[in-house]
Amino acid sequence: MELFDSIKSLCEGAKRASRELSQLSGAKRNELLIAIAKSISEGADEIIEANKIDLENAKANGISDAMLDRLMLNKARIEGISSAILKIADLADPIGAGEIFTRPNGLEIHKMRVPLGVVAMIYEARPNVTPDAASLCLKSGNAVVLRGGKEAISSNKCIVSIIRKTLKECGVDENAVSLVENTTRESANALMNMRGLIDVLIPRGGKGLIRSVVENARVPVIETGAGNCHLYVDESASIDMAIKLAINAKCSRPSVCNAIETILVHKSVAEEFLTRFAEASAPYSLDIRGCADTVSIIKGASLATEADYETEYDDYIVSIKVVCDLDSAIEHINKYTTGHSEAIVTENARSADKFTSSIDSCALYVNTSTRFTDGGEFGFGAEIGISTQKLHVRGPMGLDALTTSKYIIKGDGQIR
Amino acid sequence: MELFDSIKSLCEGAKRASRELSQLSGAKRNELLIAIAKSISEGADEIIEANKIDLENAKANGISDAMLDRLMLNKARIEGISSAILKIADLADPIGAGEIFTRPNGLEIHKMRVPLGVVAMIYEARPNVTPDAASLCLKSGNAVVLRGGKEAISSNKCIVSIIRKTLKECGVDENAVSLVENTTRESANALMNMRGLIDVLIPRGGKGLIRSVVENARVPVIETGAGNCHLYVDESASIDMAIKLAINAKCSRPSVCNAIETILVHKSVAEEFLTRFAEASAPYSLDIRGCADTVSIIKGASLATEADYETEYDDYIVSIKVVCDLDSAIEHINKYTTGHSEAIVTENARSADKFTSSIDSCALYVNTSTRFTDGGEFGFGAEIGISTQKLHVRGPMGLDALTTSKYIIKGDGQIR
Repeated sequence: MELFDSIKSLCEGAKRASRELSQLSGAKRNELLIAIAKSISEGADEIIEANKIDLENAKANGISDAMLDRLMLNKARIEGISSAILKIADLADPIGAGEIFTRPNGLEIHKMRVPLGVVAMIYEARPNVTPDAASLCLKSGNAVVLRGGKEAISSNKCIVSIIRKTLKECGVDENAVSLVENTTRESANALMNMRGLIDVLIPRGGKGLIRSVVENARVPVIETGAGNCHLYVDESASIDMAIKLAINAKCSRPSVCNAIETILVHKSVAEEFLTRFAEASAPYSLDIRGCADTVSIIKGASLATEADYETEYDDYIVSIKVVCDLDSAIEHINKYTTGHSEAIVTENARSADKFTSSIDSCALYVNTSTRFTDGGEFGFGAEIGISTQKLHVRGPMGLDALTTSKYIIKGDGQIR
Repeated sequence: MELFDSIKSLCEGAKRASRELSQLSGAKRNELLIAIAKSISEGADEIIEANKIDLENAKANGISDAMLDRLMLNKARIEGISSAILKIADLADPIGAGEIFTRPNGLEIHKMRVPLGVVAMIYEARPNVTPDAASLCLKSGNAVVLRGGKEAISSNKCIVSIIRKTLKECGVDENAVSLVENTTRESANALMNMRGLIDVLIPRGGKGLIRSVVENARVPVIETGAGNCHLYVDESASIDMAIKLAINAKCSRPSVCNAIETILVHKSVAEEFLTRFAEASAPYSLDIRGCADTVSIIKGASLATEADYETEYDDYIVSIKVVCDLDSAIEHINKYTTGHSEAIVTENARSADKFTSSIDSCALYVNTSTRFTDGGEFGFGAEIGISTQKLHVRGPMGLDALTTSKYIIKGDGQIR
């Protein structure tokens, strides 16, 4: 109960700060971001020192090189963080007046864009999420409660203390940005239960974390990131293009959510496509698991099980299935997809239309790679995650996703 | 488990039907609504017969006259339902193409408005919600699973069977509209757990129902209706207007969510306002509970407790508090509000601005009654409920609230 109470009091502080933040002008919020960018840049040595502790602990715990690289902050990366904050300051203000409509009885209804209030984020090892999330929340007038992973706790403490100090110097309640320093499962559970104090909880990280939040949270949640993505090679596809897109979507960065996990191929082009795909993917030593037809074409492919088609590998593994027509491809995808991103390679406009209108995912690609599902690539300027749910926001989440609406109704004594 | 499985299979049917519905043109969806309006009108006698059974059961169970009136369907009311469906058919189509933007790499990104998929509604005794919700869902291309209260089960069965017959005659999968005929708490709980099959669950009804859904559901929910609404009489208020608005907001229909529960009044006008309010409300025999100052002014008022300020009475009861300034009023409201509707009566524009910008509720009224928080009054043409949450939609929910977005990205071989 002690932990719960301390997190509750931290969230109450964030709630109070959120009221103050919601009253700040866009110019003042930008001023905060510019000051924070400056103090992060100036605090680079301090941050690197703190990050060293995380790196040493990580090495002692035998963490993989890939993870170590994600955790590591150096001068160049800190400059990158600082300039990313300045870019966020430059984005259009998501807060302010929207539509105004006047009713026959004379009521004037103003629909305003307002901050959500308190945004909480639970995330894992990457310390760059800390300043990034804080900046997006401040830009949109929200207070933020950050609960990063234990691997980055020393870096996170240092970064948040620099941000809070800067807020204070700018005359703003430092509780606008807080860090939950306890990184146990209990602290995450406590956040999930702060009804009335947290307006939205955004989990960012692996499947286990996201599932746990979605299933256990009693505060509003935006589900992010699960990506069992598909690429379908139609009978009319340009095979050159199909190979290029399949390699890009599977092999350019398999660990991310917009990478594909399954390739579906029309039987009439299966032999040519699969033979060439096996060659083109050879440098990546892909583990290929397929249906009986696939196995008969690709030497070294193993038989895929039902579980394979359900799995988001996030690795150099791909499952393949030869299908007899477009409808079977659509049916397979609607059965196994997590609703993230799917692509069709086709020269037939009607097949493209059927594919994009029949599949219930957030992003449907025609003749291009699923790897583009990303706020930056969509031109949103910033991204706080990729929503795979349908309510509130679907797909890459820009600053708008951190706002809600409020109606202000002006009258002169109207009654109903 | 048998009940769970049968509801699961009903939801699977709805999911299949939702795929078909999402492919129908706006014209075809309107055709369905027009046909349903006609068959409900033609089926009036049949519906009235079925409704009689509900009315007899209700009488046998000693239900109040007000409840009986809500339950009752006659020829005129059924005609009303039928013409309401025609009005929904006339509304603009919420489904279709939205923005298109082209990226520097040539990708063309289309943001489409698409149906949510399967909408489930859990509601109580009013049988008119059944055709209303079904029509709003069909108009927006969604399948709907209806779970009304036991009081209206005979009416609901009859109405849903008429709708399903009509869908079939129009060549559309009748599972687009289904009724859960089991009206126990177990059937509601089963719906709350249909992850992957129900895209949104909307509870409509009393506080107990809504709280139970919000706390227990593992499917996405839109929280509706809780309304602990306030009216604040500022020191600069026109007292004539304040009396008129207070009586309208409290007494015109106390059972609805946009009625006020608490009146806050500035100390400098408390004596005049409260004295006149006590007189004006006398015909309604209001139970007035107030702070010590209130009790000293209004004879017959009793002392309010903390619990009073927290309570949505939905009845001829009001709590009153004399406050020393606008800030105290704002603080009180932010502490006790459920985030629905609050009003200020003032002649001071700066007080109005401070009130509307500092309170975190969905609708803030200046010099008019809170009773206007309603889709029809806002000009939305139709309403499926009033959202008191911040995510997805806030305030009266029109057809847009039943849609989500989908990105279609067209390229010619772009990779990342």
